[in-house]
Amino acid sequence: MASVSFRLAFYTRCSTNTKGKEKNKKKLNCVKINGTKSFSPSKVDLLSQNSGLALTSVDSEANVYIPKEQFRQNIPTKKQLVDPFRQGIIIEEGVGYRQTVVIRSYEVGPDKTAKIESILNLLQETALNHVWMSGLLGDGFGATHGMMRNNLIWVVSRMQVQVDHYPIWGEVMEIDTWVGASGKNGMRRDWLLRSQATGVIFARATSTWVMMNQQTRRLSKMPDEVRAELSPWFIEKQAINEESHEKIDKLDDKALYVNSGLKPKRSDLDMNQHVNNVKYVRWMLEAIPDEFLENHQLSSITLEYRRECGSSDVVQSLCEPQHVELINAGIQQNNYNCLNGYSVSSGILEGNGLLRSLNQRPSSYTHLLQIKGDSKNEEIVRGKTAWKKKVIAAPFAP
Amino acid sequence: MASVSFRLAFYTRCSTNTKGKEKNKKKLNCVKINGTKSFSPSKVDLLSQNSGLALTSVDSEANVYIPKEQFRQNIPTKKQLVDPFRQGIIIEEGVGYRQTVVIRSYEVGPDKTAKIESILNLLQETALNHVWMSGLLGDGFGATHGMMRNNLIWVVSRMQVQVDHYPIWGEVMEIDTWVGASGKNGMRRDWLLRSQATGVIFARATSTWVMMNQQTRRLSKMPDEVRAELSPWFIEKQAINEESHEKIDKLDDKALYVNSGLKPKRSDLDMNQHVNNVKYVRWMLEAIPDEFLENHQLSSITLEYRRECGSSDVVQSLCEPQHVELINAGIQQNNYNCLNGYSVSSGILEGNGLLRSLNQRPSSYTHLLQIKGDSKNEEIVRGKTAWKKKVIAAPFAP
Repeated sequence: MASVSFRLAFYTRCSTNTKGKEKNKKKLNCVKINGTKSFSPSKVDLLSQNSGLALTSVDSEANVYIPKEQFRQNIPTKKQLVDPFRQGIIIEEGVGYRQTVVIRSYEVGPDKTAKIESILNLLQETALNHVWMSGLLGDGFGATHGMMRNNLIWVVSRMQVQVDHYPIWGEVMEIDTWVGASGKNGMRRDWLLRSQATGVIFARATSTWVMMNQQTRRLSKMPDEVRAELSPWFIEKQAINEESHEKIDKLDDKALYVNSGLKPKRSDLDMNQHVNNVKYVRWMLEAIPDEFLENHQLSSITLEYRRECGSSDVVQSLCEPQHVELINAGIQQNNYNCLNGYSVSSGILEGNGLLRSLNQRPSSYTHLLQIKGDSKNEEIVRGKTAWKKKVIAAPFAP
Repeated sequence: MASVSFRLAFYTRCSTNTKGKEKNKKKLNCVKINGTKSFSPSKVDLLSQNSGLALTSVDSEANVYIPKEQFRQNIPTKKQLVDPFRQGIIIEEGVGYRQTVVIRSYEVGPDKTAKIESILNLLQETALNHVWMSGLLGDGFGATHGMMRNNLIWVVSRMQVQVDHYPIWGEVMEIDTWVGASGKNGMRRDWLLRSQATGVIFARATSTWVMMNQQTRRLSKMPDEVRAELSPWFIEKQAINEESHEKIDKLDDKALYVNSGLKPKRSDLDMNQHVNNVKYVRWMLEAIPDEFLENHQLSSITLEYRRECGSSDVVQSLCEPQHVELINAGIQQNNYNCLNGYSVSSGILEGNGLLRSLNQRPSSYTHLLQIKGDSKNEEIVRGKTAWKKKVIAAPFAP
């Protein structure tokens, strides 16, 4: 395995000003005018012509011109190898993407480790930044120029995330992401999340994407011009080795836990006016009893998407436990009826370390989010979660 | 005003590996062991001694050792001038902090502009990173070493945020933050959020902080040793010029909009086991009718904190509009009864541009979050929000 190191630079400015005055900057693609409270349209036109500038917002109070979206976003029109602001670089012989991120204070929960929602957000962010760097990004949510010409958007059909370790507040992580073919018309996107300091892999993820016509809302074949854009980026490498997908059973109204009447709020909608993926996961996890969540850590989540969820849908979250926890039963009985048929006292187990491994035996849940209809229910997403018992005290701490 | 530029470097690695093998890194402050599934405590002890390493987590499946929090967080014990991972630098003659951030895909709402919650999150993040860089950060949520010795935590008493422009997805922003004295025992923290490309200021914020004894939950004077830590960082500069604070009226049960039965969820709790500040703001804004939120943009929010909110509290969000929107009344009546007493037809207003300025006239709301008690209610936070009508079409777009 060959590996090279190199240095990236990002530029920033340092001001020694402490007198409360603001710095005044000028760049070619934007203009700021101070001083006068009135102006004529012709003056603005002139500015536009002279600077190649398109103005969209005029604030009469501050006389500040905010340049058009395309200048503010500055989406690359050709492939970039480094992005100093996103702390991203192209890897994997020119087709993969790596971004360095610091786990932020608001991305962690009460136990100071990153929430699963934060990890999902970072996966989305790095995926979009990968497309951003590729020079393929149109004006949509990850759609290429060719997709936009064909009125196509991306739709995720399946996603799986495995978390071995949760990063803590302030920890520096590296996220790698890359894409590959999935059948004839789909795309696979994978991720690896690792500690920047040690290289230890904390999480792995994979997802499958297909294309949908934005008007008809029907799935579409991948047009040749889109395949020509995407296929040079495809590699075979897989973050999670899954020979065959285990199907997720469909739950019905007999599920043990049911949360009804869930309504998306404005703040739950993404750029596509859809309920954000992270909200789905929150709805799923909130159906699990709090006592369980307090003592367990999510180790794996699989999502199978069936249908879009819009802002006016009312959602029901169903959830059914799949494995009884041996450890809880054991504490009550003071002996274990092990999977292999032997019955062992907890004292013996504790002595030889078996207790710890039983303690961490994953429990799993099956989930379903659906729209409750008068005649029939419509599935939004099926899910499966696996859990590990939280380790409270570290066995070898000094 | 003097201003200098300099270059920062951040290090990252580039791998040319496409064969699915993971790189294997070693650093002094962490160890990764592959291969064997069993190990003895003495082996681990040896590792600890030889490398100065403290191990806390052992995963028997992967045989991966995750070093202790202090190594993973790597909090500086003395002042740092640059942080390449956080893209932060010390400014303002050595006492202020500036961080470059890119607005991420999941931080924006359906209109592609950053949500107010995202802006509040970034303010919290940069404040904590400022303390992080200072070398003063203990093991708490922004508390200094001296505060920790005195069992003190920070409590925010007031916060005000003014947003002139909302950044869009992918926009590069600079956030400056600094601190100053507030009375004898308090601290003021201010922020400026500006476009990295143009220097245009998008938002300003100020906040006031006092210290609380973690055990007694009573407010505390600032001990001399803490003053000695903090005061070298104090400057006079203010982001928002407020001569005197306008007090926020207390709402009662007669408020026009009331949302009851709001329960914090596990995902709403921060590192201090408290309901996160951003959740307060969401509860406040969700009490405002959707039709209003769709057409208006928050231009200012002020929060006065009264009491902590814990995970078991059930909260009520009250909200009362403070200004009737002239434009809505005008459309119905086809004339305006202006504030100065003149009645003007909408045609005349439209002709001379007055309509636009009335259109954008801010509306404001008063808010209250409280815990509903049997005998009396307990205030958590009072709030005030000001709003601008959203500008749909740009008047001078080409």
